[in-house]
Amino acid sequence: MTSVDNRKFVLASRPTGAPTEDNFDFKTEQLPEIKDGELLLRTIYLSLDPYMRGRMNDAESYAEPVNIGEIMVGATVCQVEQSKNDKFAVGDWVLAYTGWQEYAISNGKELMPLGNDPSRPSYALGVMGMPGFTAYMGLLDIGEPKEGETVVVAAATGPVGATVGQIAKIKGCKVVGIAGGTEKCQHAVEKLGFDACIDHKADNFEEQLKEACTDGIDVYYENVGGKVFDAVLPLLNISARIPLCGLVSQYNATSLPDGPDRMFALMGHILTKRIKMQGFIIFDDYGHRYDEFAKDMQQWLNEGKVHYKEHMIDGFENTVTAFNDMLNGKNFGKTVVKVNNPL
Amino acid sequence: MTSVDNRKFVLASRPTGAPTEDNFDFKTEQLPEIKDGELLLRTIYLSLDPYMRGRMNDAESYAEPVNIGEIMVGATVCQVEQSKNDKFAVGDWVLAYTGWQEYAISNGKELMPLGNDPSRPSYALGVMGMPGFTAYMGLLDIGEPKEGETVVVAAATGPVGATVGQIAKIKGCKVVGIAGGTEKCQHAVEKLGFDACIDHKADNFEEQLKEACTDGIDVYYENVGGKVFDAVLPLLNISARIPLCGLVSQYNATSLPDGPDRMFALMGHILTKRIKMQGFIIFDDYGHRYDEFAKDMQQWLNEGKVHYKEHMIDGFENTVTAFNDMLNGKNFGKTVVKVNNPL
Repeated sequence: MTSVDNRKFVLASRPTGAPTEDNFDFKTEQLPEIKDGELLLRTIYLSLDPYMRGRMNDAESYAEPVNIGEIMVGATVCQVEQSKNDKFAVGDWVLAYTGWQEYAISNGKELMPLGNDPSRPSYALGVMGMPGFTAYMGLLDIGEPKEGETVVVAAATGPVGATVGQIAKIKGCKVVGIAGGTEKCQHAVEKLGFDACIDHKADNFEEQLKEACTDGIDVYYENVGGKVFDAVLPLLNISARIPLCGLVSQYNATSLPDGPDRMFALMGHILTKRIKMQGFIIFDDYGHRYDEFAKDMQQWLNEGKVHYKEHMIDGFENTVTAFNDMLNGKNFGKTVVKVNNPL
Repeated sequence: MTSVDNRKFVLASRPTGAPTEDNFDFKTEQLPEIKDGELLLRTIYLSLDPYMRGRMNDAESYAEPVNIGEIMVGATVCQVEQSKNDKFAVGDWVLAYTGWQEYAISNGKELMPLGNDPSRPSYALGVMGMPGFTAYMGLLDIGEPKEGETVVVAAATGPVGATVGQIAKIKGCKVVGIAGGTEKCQHAVEKLGFDACIDHKADNFEEQLKEACTDGIDVYYENVGGKVFDAVLPLLNISARIPLCGLVSQYNATSLPDGPDRMFALMGHILTKRIKMQGFIIFDDYGHRYDEFAKDMQQWLNEGKVHYKEHMIDGFENTVTAFNDMLNGKNFGKTVVKVNNPL
């Protein structure tokens, strides 16, 4: 066996506002030869997700921040390129958490086997993985949608929003999406089956949202915050539920917005409308229910009830640009970087 | 039978900030003689509660606002003084919702009979009534306290806060109260059995609260908002629960506070700490579970596990002052106005 050169992105400095190329070091290192029990993993697909922006800050967030000089974290779908571990053969596919790099050495633990010939391996990063699971549990367990209720979700063509809306349709709800641009809105309605999708870039966005939600909003699946939430708030019905899994519009904020301070006004809404707002982190809160999700989702995919769109970026060196594009809503579907060709 | 003169407080104008005497008209009217099927109710006890402040505004709140010229709403414990209704005899006690007046004519509907010789009739306005029920369901159903967890509640000697803390103690929690002044704090610890009670008027209130909550806060029962919430927020643990039944510190606010705008910062906390915040209105959300509460609470009172303190105001003409004192935390226990002597 031979050692390989590994290219990787490490955190060079903490961003102020939107990340730039300067916040990352693109480094090359020679990996040592693998020892007994180890594997050399070849990254095929790298998932880019909004939560990664939080890890770049030196502040309390979902989890520990990435330290300066450390590799950027992230889920990957890899193939085993070399193996000195009985449990894995060369060519096997695995779901791993090896971050922004072309190769990784693993002891075989904390890998989820995907078999040696999965039909759509990258789905494990999206509709069958963390984003799909996030959509499923947040909507069903916290949102508790009932037939005939109105469910609103933003980032409607992203991996979470698209899945939320399609599950809500399966459950008999009216679904109103919010997305940036007419192309995405058209996709949400025509391909994903949403009842309506409103372009948040439109001048009369708030008015259009109100018109689309003729019976108010019973479940608002929150993943963006900002002006979308401002428009949603007055439309919420009595006993509305707000699963809160992200606030992507706020991740690059460098300071609190100007006043007035609406914190207690929000709590006043929650009180008088008897709203439930609940934050969750999918694997921490619901890890024990993954099988339930995987069974349902696999069936819906097989039956064609859930469609899934990927925004595939070719070339590992384009990772930072792809990451910023995703934070700014320029992706159309789940952002995945194709890092290496399969074996 | 003879007609009676009835004195009552009607809403004269909507307050800007704290209510004043000018916002009320103190009127006398002669009631007509009762007809067949009717009762003349003699108000013995009038309950004064924070939610009434919301009803004085012409804005969306828990319920419809009181109209100008209409009687101020409120729960009362009355005795039947005259009866032309077979279901009620003279001298019977009832829980009613007849508002700020000395007498009322009722058709006998929407009254809860309390028997003809209740031991503590005014308790139906407090620990055995709306405030006690609010404490019970909010803490147990939304707060879901587990043995050994830390529960924090403000207005710790008020009818809701005192009950929340004592139920939490019954459930094996550590309980930290917040109240205004050393006398109230002493009462919460010595009489109600709280583990600690912090004076929010103390200069180093935030520091004291932090020291008392050595393991953070798992359940914050919110009924005040304002600077108490500001101090609680950084101490909340992962997966904390916030039942939200009131924001009394905000009820007299005439405009939103100055910035910065912390609305999305609050949502950021809810997200990263996976907090559940849920508003509720007791009879709308939990009316069907009243019996469950009444059974438990009666038992706890009988066993001496729950203590209850009333702040009894003598004289109906003192109602407005007593109401403002309650909004400003000058009451010590449940505010009840003794309107008439019992028959």
